[in-house]
Amino acid sequence: MFDAVRETEKIITFIRDYYEKNHLKGAVLGISGGKDSGVVAGLMCKALGSENVVGITLPCHSKEADAADAKLVAEKFGFEFLNIDLTDVYDSFKVQVGKLGEFTDEETKNSDINIKPRFRMASVYYMAALLSATRGGTYIVPGTSNACELYVGYFTKGGDSVYDIAPIYGLTVEEVIQVGEVIGVPEKVLYRTPDDGISGLSDEDKLGVRYSDIARVINGEEVGEEAEKKIEELHRKAAHKFHTPVYRK
Amino acid sequence: MFDAVRETEKIITFIRDYYEKNHLKGAVLGISGGKDSGVVAGLMCKALGSENVVGITLPCHSKEADAADAKLVAEKFGFEFLNIDLTDVYDSFKVQVGKLGEFTDEETKNSDINIKPRFRMASVYYMAALLSATRGGTYIVPGTSNACELYVGYFTKGGDSVYDIAPIYGLTVEEVIQVGEVIGVPEKVLYRTPDDGISGLSDEDKLGVRYSDIARVINGEEVGEEAEKKIEELHRKAAHKFHTPVYRK
Repeated sequence: MFDAVRETEKIITFIRDYYEKNHLKGAVLGISGGKDSGVVAGLMCKALGSENVVGITLPCHSKEADAADAKLVAEKFGFEFLNIDLTDVYDSFKVQVGKLGEFTDEETKNSDINIKPRFRMASVYYMAALLSATRGGTYIVPGTSNACELYVGYFTKGGDSVYDIAPIYGLTVEEVIQVGEVIGVPEKVLYRTPDDGISGLSDEDKLGVRYSDIARVINGEEVGEEAEKKIEELHRKAAHKFHTPVYRK
Repeated sequence: MFDAVRETEKIITFIRDYYEKNHLKGAVLGISGGKDSGVVAGLMCKALGSENVVGITLPCHSKEADAADAKLVAEKFGFEFLNIDLTDVYDSFKVQVGKLGEFTDEETKNSDINIKPRFRMASVYYMAALLSATRGGTYIVPGTSNACELYVGYFTKGGDSVYDIAPIYGLTVEEVIQVGEVIGVPEKVLYRTPDDGISGLSDEDKLGVRYSDIARVINGEEVGEEAEKKIEELHRKAAHKFHTPVYRK
């Protein structure tokens, strides 16, 4: 049985211990307006004090509603809130790609979807180094992936997979929500149907499986045969995201 | 004793086996004009045929000489050679950062240096997905880090540390050069003093240690006390780039 109050305390201690041991100061993270970044931002504030946490919205041809939901999180926990609009950066990149040839939207679809989290990662790390330089002390980047997303490889390698500490790495989606309830993440953010803010589909529609079923598989519980097959197939196909083949003498 | 001819064959087999096992088609990589990307590009061509390798120069306020040296590699091995100029993308990003405040060059120095390899990684992965979509078959991204760079953490997390296969991961700088001699990497590229093309300093000056001394430490051989201390300190400080703290229940 998941004890949300106890786990929340343990995560906060885990964060605080790592910061103390390594003489770190602050955290910089992208705030999407979804539950994962909302919960992680809240946990970082509880662990470090909200004065040491900086959240960034990183719109890139995005819906304005996302930024509004992100703002709810910043207001709730009282951390500094910045905006870096990546729309021009993305458009500027697409101009360069256009010089290589004419491509259809279908052909560039996967490329277009995945470059956004990569630009976001680059931007968040840019700000982490800049705040470390201007404010003194080291700012690092917490990741916002949860155990269900990780199990099926639902992340962009080199994008949201790059981080310096992973506070909800071991929690299923349901457990992340329970922790969010304990620390008071705004309901609108916590119960929003998760989507990537890019493709227009919900995460579950895109994956073709339910997060609750992934959680069952992770916990060794029964799920329907079809769901299990699909989940294990996603898990197997994602293996390359975790294990890079390296040549050794 | 390092047998360069034999190791070269073994690396080529390692690459070919991974591609066959995973039904992959091609490779896309950034070509800097330095020895590491030159050697890896050559190895990929030997393993897959040069028709399945695409090299990209990714200038970003860069010296023109780098692109000329990169072209030498492409001509030698006969692979397709593209250019994506990131100067406008970078400038566009800096405009957005400028909206957050006024920062000195000294304050943005670390941020500016490290965002370039991150943008390069994002660009190479963009092209890998685009070529997979337009040409059929899966293109992946080989990494170009060598054992000496890895040992002291001389790479950008989320930049040149993101790749799908690592052909020279286990080779010291001297061994990379020997493999380059076996496959015929152009001398101008192979013996060029390595630098990041960004800071204006050679890698060894920037690190404050010699690659030959790092190789000795890796191989368990004697080096001077001062060099060993410096190298082990760099190694220790780079630990966070390899081990990310994750919370598990």
